[in-house]
Amino acid sequence: MRRLIPAALLIGSLGLAPAAQAQPVTLINVFDVPQGALEPTIRFWEASRDFLARQPGYHSTRLHQAILPDARFQLINVAVWESPEAFQAAARRMQAELRVPPPPGLAFHAALYRVVRD
Amino acid sequence: MRRLIPAALLIGSLGLAPAAQAQPVTLINVFDVPQGALEPTIRFWEASRDFLARQPGYHSTRLHQAILPDARFQLINVAVWESPEAFQAAARRMQAELRVPPPPGLAFHAALYRVVRD
Repeated sequence: MRRLIPAALLIGSLGLAPAAQAQPVTLINVFDVPQGALEPTIRFWEASRDFLARQPGYHSTRLHQAILPDARFQLINVAVWESPEAFQAAARRMQAELRVPPPPGLAFHAALYRVVRD
Repeated sequence: MRRLIPAALLIGSLGLAPAAQAQPVTLINVFDVPQGALEPTIRFWEASRDFLARQPGYHSTRLHQAILPDARFQLINVAVWESPEAFQAAARRMQAELRVPPPPGLAFHAALYRVVRD
Protein backbone atom coordinates (compact mmCIF):
# COMPACT_ATOMS: atom_id res chain seq x y z
CA MET A 1 0.00 0.00 0.00
CA ARG A 2 1.32 3.40 -0.88
CA ARG A 3 1.77 5.76 2.02
CA LEU A 4 1.10 9.43 2.49
CA ILE A 5 4.56 10.14 3.88
CA PRO A 6 7.77 9.22 2.02
CA ALA A 7 10.14 6.96 3.90
CA ALA A 8 12.89 9.59 3.72
CA LEU A 9 10.88 11.82 6.03
CA LEU A 10 10.62 9.13 8.69
CA ILE A 11 14.26 8.22 9.09
CA GLY A 12 16.50 9.59 11.78
CA SER A 13 16.82 13.25 12.69
CA LEU A 14 16.93 14.79 9.18
CA GLY A 15 20.56 15.65 9.92
CA LEU A 16 19.61 18.85 11.69
CA ALA A 17 21.34 20.57 14.59
CA PRO A 18 19.32 20.49 17.84
CA ALA A 19 18.52 24.22 17.62
CA ALA A 20 17.05 23.82 14.13
CA GLN A 21 14.99 20.84 15.25
CA ALA A 22 13.30 22.86 17.99
CA GLN A 23 11.74 25.35 15.57
CA PRO A 24 8.30 24.94 14.01
CA VAL A 25 8.40 23.38 10.59
CA THR A 26 6.05 23.36 7.60
CA LEU A 27 5.01 20.17 5.88
CA ILE A 28 3.97 20.80 2.27
CA ASN A 29 2.37 17.94 0.37
CA VAL A 30 1.89 18.48 -3.36
CA PHE A 31 -0.72 16.05 -4.72
CA ASP A 32 -0.69 14.84 -8.30
CA VAL A 33 -4.37 13.93 -8.52
CA PRO A 34 -5.45 11.47 -11.24
CA GLN A 35 -8.33 12.54 -13.48
CA GLY A 36 -11.62 12.03 -11.66
CA ALA A 37 -10.02 11.27 -8.28
CA LEU A 38 -10.44 14.65 -6.60
CA GLU A 39 -13.14 13.63 -4.10
CA PRO A 40 -11.51 10.29 -3.11
CA THR A 41 -8.23 12.16 -2.62
CA ILE A 42 -9.90 14.70 -0.32
CA ARG A 43 -11.48 11.87 1.70
CA PHE A 44 -8.07 10.16 1.96
CA TRP A 45 -6.54 13.45 3.11
CA GLU A 46 -9.31 13.90 5.70
CA ALA A 47 -8.63 10.47 7.21
CA SER A 48 -4.92 11.30 7.48
CA ARG A 49 -5.70 14.75 8.91
CA ASP A 50 -8.04 13.30 11.54
CA PHE A 51 -5.25 10.97 12.71
CA LEU A 52 -2.42 13.52 12.61
CA ALA A 53 -4.39 16.31 14.29
CA ARG A 54 -4.60 14.21 17.46
CA GLN A 55 -0.82 13.72 17.70
CA PRO A 56 1.56 15.75 19.92
CA GLY A 57 3.19 18.69 18.16
CA TYR A 58 0.43 19.23 15.59
CA HIS A 59 -0.26 22.95 15.05
CA SER A 60 -2.46 23.41 11.97
CA THR A 61 -3.18 22.28 8.43
CA ARG A 62 -4.80 23.72 5.32
CA LEU A 63 -5.79 21.81 2.19
CA HIS A 64 -5.72 24.08 -0.89
CA GLN A 65 -7.72 23.26 -4.02
CA ALA A 66 -6.88 24.89 -7.35
CA ILE A 67 -9.46 27.35 -8.69
CA LEU A 68 -8.88 26.21 -12.27
CA PRO A 69 -9.30 22.54 -13.28
CA ASP A 70 -6.22 22.62 -15.54
CA ALA A 71 -3.77 23.54 -12.78
CA ARG A 72 -0.88 21.06 -12.68
CA PHE A 73 -1.43 20.32 -8.98
CA GLN A 74 -5.11 20.29 -7.96
CA LEU A 75 -4.48 19.83 -4.22
CA ILE A 76 -1.66 21.15 -2.00
CA ASN A 77 -1.59 20.71 1.76
CA VAL A 78 0.33 23.11 4.02
CA ALA A 79 0.65 22.04 7.68
CA VAL A 80 2.64 23.40 10.61
CA TRP A 81 4.26 21.15 13.22
CA GLU A 82 6.13 21.96 16.40
CA SER A 83 9.33 20.30 15.15
CA PRO A 84 10.59 17.81 12.57
CA GLU A 85 10.74 15.16 15.32
CA ALA A 86 7.10 15.71 16.32
CA PHE A 87 6.01 15.30 12.72
CA GLN A 88 8.21 12.26 12.17
CA ALA A 89 6.84 10.54 15.28
CA ALA A 90 3.25 11.27 14.23
CA ALA A 91 3.89 10.04 10.69
CA ARG A 92 5.43 6.82 12.01
CA ARG A 93 2.39 6.22 14.19
CA MET A 94 0.09 6.88 11.23
CA GLN A 95 1.99 4.37 9.07
CA ALA A 96 1.67 1.74 11.79
CA GLU A 97 -1.93 2.36 12.78
CA LEU A 98 -3.96 4.01 10.00
CA ARG A 99 -5.23 1.60 7.39
CA VAL A 100 -6.71 3.90 4.78
CA PRO A 101 -5.32 3.33 1.27
CA PRO A 102 -4.91 6.28 -1.12
CA PRO A 103 -6.93 6.34 -4.36
CA PRO A 104 -5.32 4.34 -7.20
CA GLY A 105 -2.76 6.36 -9.13
CA LEU A 106 -2.47 9.16 -6.59
CA ALA A 107 1.06 10.58 -6.41
CA PHE A 108 2.29 13.11 -3.87
CA HIS A 109 5.48 14.93 -3.02
CA ALA A 110 5.71 15.61 0.72
CA ALA A 111 8.64 17.41 2.33
CA LEU A 112 9.44 19.52 5.39
CA TYR A 113 10.18 23.19 4.79
CA ARG A 114 11.25 26.34 6.58
CA VAL A 115 10.21 29.87 5.64
CA VAL A 116 13.36 31.53 4.27
CA ARG A 117 11.85 34.76 2.88
CA ASP A 118 8.64 36.68 3.41
CA MET B 1 12.04 34.93 -21.83
CA ARG B 2 10.18 32.61 -19.51
CA ARG B 3 7.83 34.27 -17.09
CA LEU B 4 7.01 33.64 -13.46
CA ILE B 5 3.26 33.55 -14.06
CA PRO B 6 1.66 31.19 -16.59
CA ALA B 7 -0.46 32.84 -19.27
CA ALA B 8 -3.54 30.91 -18.15
CA LEU B 9 -3.55 32.85 -14.90
CA LEU B 10 -3.60 36.19 -16.68
CA ILE B 11 -6.55 35.66 -18.99
CA GLY B 12 -10.04 36.85 -18.22
CA SER B 13 -11.86 36.35 -14.95
CA LEU B 14 -10.94 32.68 -14.27
CA GLY B 15 -14.60 31.87 -14.93
CA LEU B 16 -15.59 32.69 -11.37
CA ALA B 17 -18.83 34.10 -10.05
CA PRO B 18 -18.50 37.65 -8.64
CA ALA B 19 -18.92 36.44 -5.03
CA ALA B 20 -16.05 33.97 -5.41
CA GLN B 21 -13.86 36.65 -6.93
CA ALA B 22 -14.25 38.91 -3.91
CA GLN B 23 -12.67 36.42 -1.49
CA PRO B 24 -8.96 36.27 -0.68
CA VAL B 25 -7.09 33.75 -2.74
CA THR B 26 -3.82 31.86 -2.30
CA LEU B 27 -1.17 31.76 -5.01
CA ILE B 28 1.04 28.69 -4.67
CA ASN B 29 4.13 28.49 -6.86
CA VAL B 30 5.96 25.15 -6.87
CA PHE B 31 9.52 25.62 -8.15
CA ASP B 32 11.42 22.84 -9.89
CA VAL B 33 14.92 24.15 -9.15
CA PRO B 34 17.78 22.92 -11.37
CA GLN B 35 20.83 21.49 -9.59
CA GLY B 36 23.00 24.33 -8.29
CA ALA B 37 20.44 27.07 -9.03
CA LEU B 38 19.00 27.54 -5.56
CA GLU B 39 20.51 30.96 -4.83
CA PRO B 40 19.79 32.44 -8.30
CA THR B 41 16.22 31.19 -7.97
CA ILE B 42 15.83 32.89 -4.59
CA ARG B 43 17.19 36.15 -6.04
CA PHE B 44 14.76 35.87 -8.96
CA TRP B 45 11.93 35.28 -6.49
CA GLU B 46 13.01 38.30 -4.43
CA ALA B 47 12.89 40.58 -7.47
CA SER B 48 9.38 39.38 -8.28
CA ARG B 49 8.30 39.69 -4.63
CA ASP B 50 9.62 43.26 -4.42
CA PHE B 51 7.50 44.20 -7.45
CA LEU B 52 4.35 42.34 -6.44
CA ALA B 53 4.40 43.50 -2.80
CA ARG B 54 3.88 47.09 -4.00
CA GLN B 55 0.75 46.26 -6.00
CA PRO B 56 -2.86 46.77 -4.82
CA GLY B 57 -4.43 43.70 -3.24
CA TYR B 58 -1.16 42.12 -2.06
CA HIS B 59 -1.54 40.61 1.43
CA SER B 60 1.49 38.43 2.21
CA THR B 61 3.98 35.91 0.87
CA ARG B 62 6.22 33.17 2.25
CA LEU B 63 9.00 31.37 0.40
CA HIS B 64 9.55 27.87 1.80
CA GLN B 65 12.85 26.02 1.35
CA ALA B 66 13.04 22.25 1.83
CA ILE B 67 15.01 21.04 4.86
CA LEU B 68 16.42 18.08 2.94
CA PRO B 69 18.36 18.57 -0.32
CA ASP B 70 16.70 15.58 -1.98
CA ALA B 71 13.16 16.91 -1.70
CA ARG B 72 11.46 16.91 -5.11
CA PHE B 73 10.58 20.63 -4.86
CA GLN B 74 13.27 22.71 -3.12
CA LEU B 75 11.27 25.97 -3.09
CA ILE B 76 7.53 26.58 -2.73
CA ASN B 77 6.00 30.04 -2.45
CA VAL B 78 2.64 30.60 -0.74
CA ALA B 79 1.14 34.09 -1.15
CA VAL B 80 -2.23 35.60 -0.25
CA TRP B 81 -4.00 38.14 -2.45
CA GLU B 82 -7.19 40.09 -1.95
CA SER B 83 -8.84 38.53 -5.01
CA PRO B 84 -7.98 36.69 -8.23
CA GLU B 85 -8.46 39.97 -10.12
CA ALA B 86 -5.99 41.84 -7.90
CA PHE B 87 -3.38 39.14 -8.46
CA GLN B 88 -4.04 38.99 -12.20
CA ALA B 89 -3.67 42.75 -12.55
CA ALA B 90 -0.42 42.73 -10.57
CA ALA B 91 0.96 39.83 -12.57
CA ARG B 92 0.12 41.58 -15.84
CA ARG B 93 1.95 44.69 -14.66
CA MET B 94 4.94 42.59 -13.65
CA GLN B 95 5.07 40.92 -17.05
CA ALA B 96 5.02 44.31 -18.75
CA GLU B 97 7.45 46.14 -16.48
CA LEU B 98 9.82 43.76 -14.64
CA ARG B 99 12.77 42.66 -16.72
CA VAL B 100 14.42 40.05 -14.53
CA PRO B 101 14.92 36.71 -16.31
CA PRO B 102 14.66 33.45 -14.32
CA PRO B 103 17.74 31.21 -14.00
CA PRO B 104 18.23 28.86 -16.98
CA GLY B 105 16.25 25.65 -16.63
CA LEU B 106 14.01 26.86 -13.82
CA ALA B 107 10.51 25.41 -14.05
CA PHE B 108 7.58 26.38 -11.89
CA HIS B 109 3.93 25.50 -11.48
CA ALA B 110 1.90 28.50 -10.29
CA ALA B 111 -1.84 28.40 -9.64
CA LEU B 112 -4.49 30.12 -7.57
CA TYR B 113 -6.05 28.11 -4.74
CA ARG B 114 -8.71 28.29 -2.08
CA VAL B 115 -8.57 26.58 1.31
CA VAL B 116 -11.17 23.79 1.17
CA ARG B 117 -10.34 21.93 4.41
CA ASP B 118 -8.47 22.77 7.58
